[in-house]
Order: sequence, then structure tokens, then C-alpha cells
Amino acid sequence: MAKDMTLLWGSGSPPCWRVMIALEEKNLQGYNSKLLSFDKMEHKSQEVLDINPRGQVPAFKHGNVVVNESYAACFYLESKFKTQGTKLIPDSPEDQALVYQRMFEGLTFYDKLTKVIFYEWYVPKEERHDSAVKRNLENLVAELKLWEGYLQKLGSDTYLAGPSFTLADVVVGPTVAFLFRFGLSAERYPKLGEYYARLKERPSMKASWPPHWLEDPKGQDTLKDI
Amino acid sequence: MAKDMTLLWGSGSPPCWRVMIALEEKNLQGYNSKLLSFDKMEHKSQEVLDINPRGQVPAFKHGNVVVNESYAACFYLESKFKTQGTKLIPDSPEDQALVYQRMFEGLTFYDKLTKVIFYEWYVPKEERHDSAVKRNLENLVAELKLWEGYLQKLGSDTYLAGPSFTLADVVVGPTVAFLFRFGLSAERYPKLGEYYARLKERPSMKASWPPHWLEDPKGQDTLKDI
Repeated sequence: MAKDMTLLWGSGSPPCWRVMIALEEKNLQGYNSKLLSFDKMEHKSQEVLDINPRGQVPAFKHGNVVVNESYAACFYLESKFKTQGTKLIPDSPEDQALVYQRMFEGLTFYDKLTKVIFYEWYVPKEERHDSAVKRNLENLVAELKLWEGYLQKLGSDTYLAGPSFTLADVVVGPTVAFLFRFGLSAERYPKLGEYYARLKERPSMKASWPPHWLEDPKGQDTLKDI
Repeated sequence: MAKDMTLLWGSGSPPCWRVMIALEEKNLQGYNSKLLSFDKMEHKSQEVLDINPRGQVPAFKHGNVVVNESYAACFYLESKFKTQGTKLIPDSPEDQALVYQRMFEGLTFYDKLTKVIFYEWYVPKEERHDSAVKRNLENLVAELKLWEGYLQKLGSDTYLAGPSFTLADVVVGPTVAFLFRFGLSAERYPKLGEYYARLKERPSMKASWPPHWLEDPKGQDTLKDI
């Protein structure tokens, strides 16, 4: 039981979700978990600011160790609990290379996704342009083709860096779940579709599935035609 | 001599610079180094595409291992050459936590910097807004205050995660160098100024200093009043 750990999080925040998946994979259930409301601006509360001066979630603490950046928390957890639960970083540097490469490409993937699905949230009304919307969509499509190709190359029943579930899946998994939540077509992107189907069955993903998605399983259709 | 390594890079690209610093710190001089011209669009050449399908630099290869994302390459090099040169990731997970935390905050720092200094390069003319320019500048100032505070807390003669030079310095160092290249005032940000002075003396930074900065040591004054 991970009683000396605290995670403050928001439902459906991909960075929070990454940390929750890592905690599940490392068998670190039973941590102090507090779901905050973005609507009520609870991520700007003193409770968050005490851990994360940026006023953002995740805000994560293990004993006296504070690691709020989702990738940082994942690296820390894998290092601290190396022999516990799923091994998320392979031993050989050669195998690590692909895990790292996909992890960091995953940041670009996430950026290109959010620029499309959260455009109106990020960009004030008077600064919005159809030309930007069009370009963001084209960039996302190009990105999707890259990942579809990566999965294609790895064959069937694969994770992002090969047959084992790794830190690459921990950090990119939520991005893929968001794609399909926002209507991506598994017919147009069959490899991403297969990968998503496998992800959904992963116990760590199930245990950390965004609560408001469970309440309202119907997503949006923003991406259905891309 | 790192004859089995190839790095394709562009002068003054912070992601390329990160990899070059890591190579120097790990005593991996003598790799195949090819400086490409962004003006001539050489980063879109077949030579780059053969290593990096995104058509971006850095494009980095070690034997059959390809790692193009700068953070991924840094993690790979530290893991592969763990006992060679500078130890860039400390042994204990508790010490690692701060290194990781600053590394990943470093991506936000870099993003906020580039949104100011490369605004006209990133945003097409008809999509530019004074309100966005103003907001980006405010975001950068808030970010600078955070980092100034981090350094303040660590005392004098410090690196970003304490007394040792780590992967946090490798990846954030170029961002700090860019700040001062674009005119940041060491009087207004004395801790960042001290840190930059220390960085400039680091042999790995000197050996990888952008060639076009050497040719033309005078930078710009974009940030002088912030």
C-alpha cells in the first residue's frame, strides 16, 4: 500500500492519467488520491500550490520527494520501484532507445492532438483563424500516419515499442484513448484501432479510466472524418 | 573515438545542441558530424529523412540504433555510456526526481521562450495578434521568475538540480544560452545570469557553441526589457 504517496489529479487530464497508469503498473495502489474539479478551479487551490507551484495537476508527492511533471513522475516511479510490478524500461540501452524515442515523439503527438481538440479552449476567440484550424488538422493527420506506420512495422499484438508494455505506452496511451474518445475511425486507422482495443483491456488503463468518461461513455465526433 | 555515431545538426538549434553537449560530457568526441543549413532546407534532405522520417534535426544514429528526439538521445547516451565521462543522472531515485522534474519543466521553459523569440517564424503574418504577443511575453516572465527562484533556493555555485552538472543542465542549458543571446538582463535575473556565466565556461558548452554565434558574437535585444 502506497500510503506515503499523494496524487492530486483531474478527470480526463492526460498528464494525470499517465501517472495513474504508471502507479497501477508498479502495483502502487492505495495511495492518497484526490480528484479535483477543473470547473471549480481546484487546481489553483493552496493544496495544489503547496506541491506544485505552477498550480497544475498532476501534483505528486512521495514522502518528501515532489515530482509533478508527468514524464518525470513516470521515470521516478520506474527507477524507485524497478523490481516491482511491470518492468517499464527494458534493460538494454538498445531496447531503451526505441522506448525513449516513442516517449518523446509522444509529446509532439499530444501537442498536435490538443491543438485540434482543445483549440477553442487554448485560443481566445478573437485570435482564432480558419487557416490555423486547417493547418492543425493537417498536422494531426500527418502525425497519425506516422504512428499508424510505426505500429504497422511492428506487426500484430504489439505495443508502441514492441511486444512488451513500456513507459512509451504509459505516456502515449492516454493520447490514443483521447483520439478515439473524440471520434477517430478505427477503420481509417486500423493499427491505432487495434492498439486502442488492446490498451482498453489493460488492467492499469481500466483502473484509471477517467471517471467522467465512465459516467458518460459517449464521446464526441470531432475527429470522425479525418 | 565515436566513429560509429552520426549526428546531422543545424547551428543554433537547441535540440541539436542538447545532444552535442551530452556527447561532449560523455567523452564521445570524433563522431561523424554534419552541419546542415536550414536556409537551404537541408533538414528535409534524403540524408536526414533516412534517419529521421520527420525531416528534422537532430538526426542521430549509433550503429543501428536511431534516436532523433533530443531528450531520448540524451537518455540513451547516459544509459549506454553510464560509466564514461560525466555521470548525468545520479544514482538515487530521490536525487533523480529533481533532475527529471527540471528536465521536463525545461520543455515548458523552452516552449515559452520560443513563443516569444520565434513568434514571427511560427505564426503566419495574417494570424498574428498583439494580444498573443503580450500574453506570450507575460508567460515567459512568469516562467523566468520560477527558474530564478529555483536557482535562488539552491544557493550559489549551483547547477539546475544541485551542485553537480546533470542531464537537466544538458537539456535546459541551450534555453538559458538563448535567453541571453536574445538580450536577457543578468541584472534583472541575477541567478540566471550567474548560472549562464558558469555554463559558458563548461568545456562541453564551449566545444558545442553554435558556430554562427561565434562568427557573430552580437546577439539581439528582444528580451532586454523584460
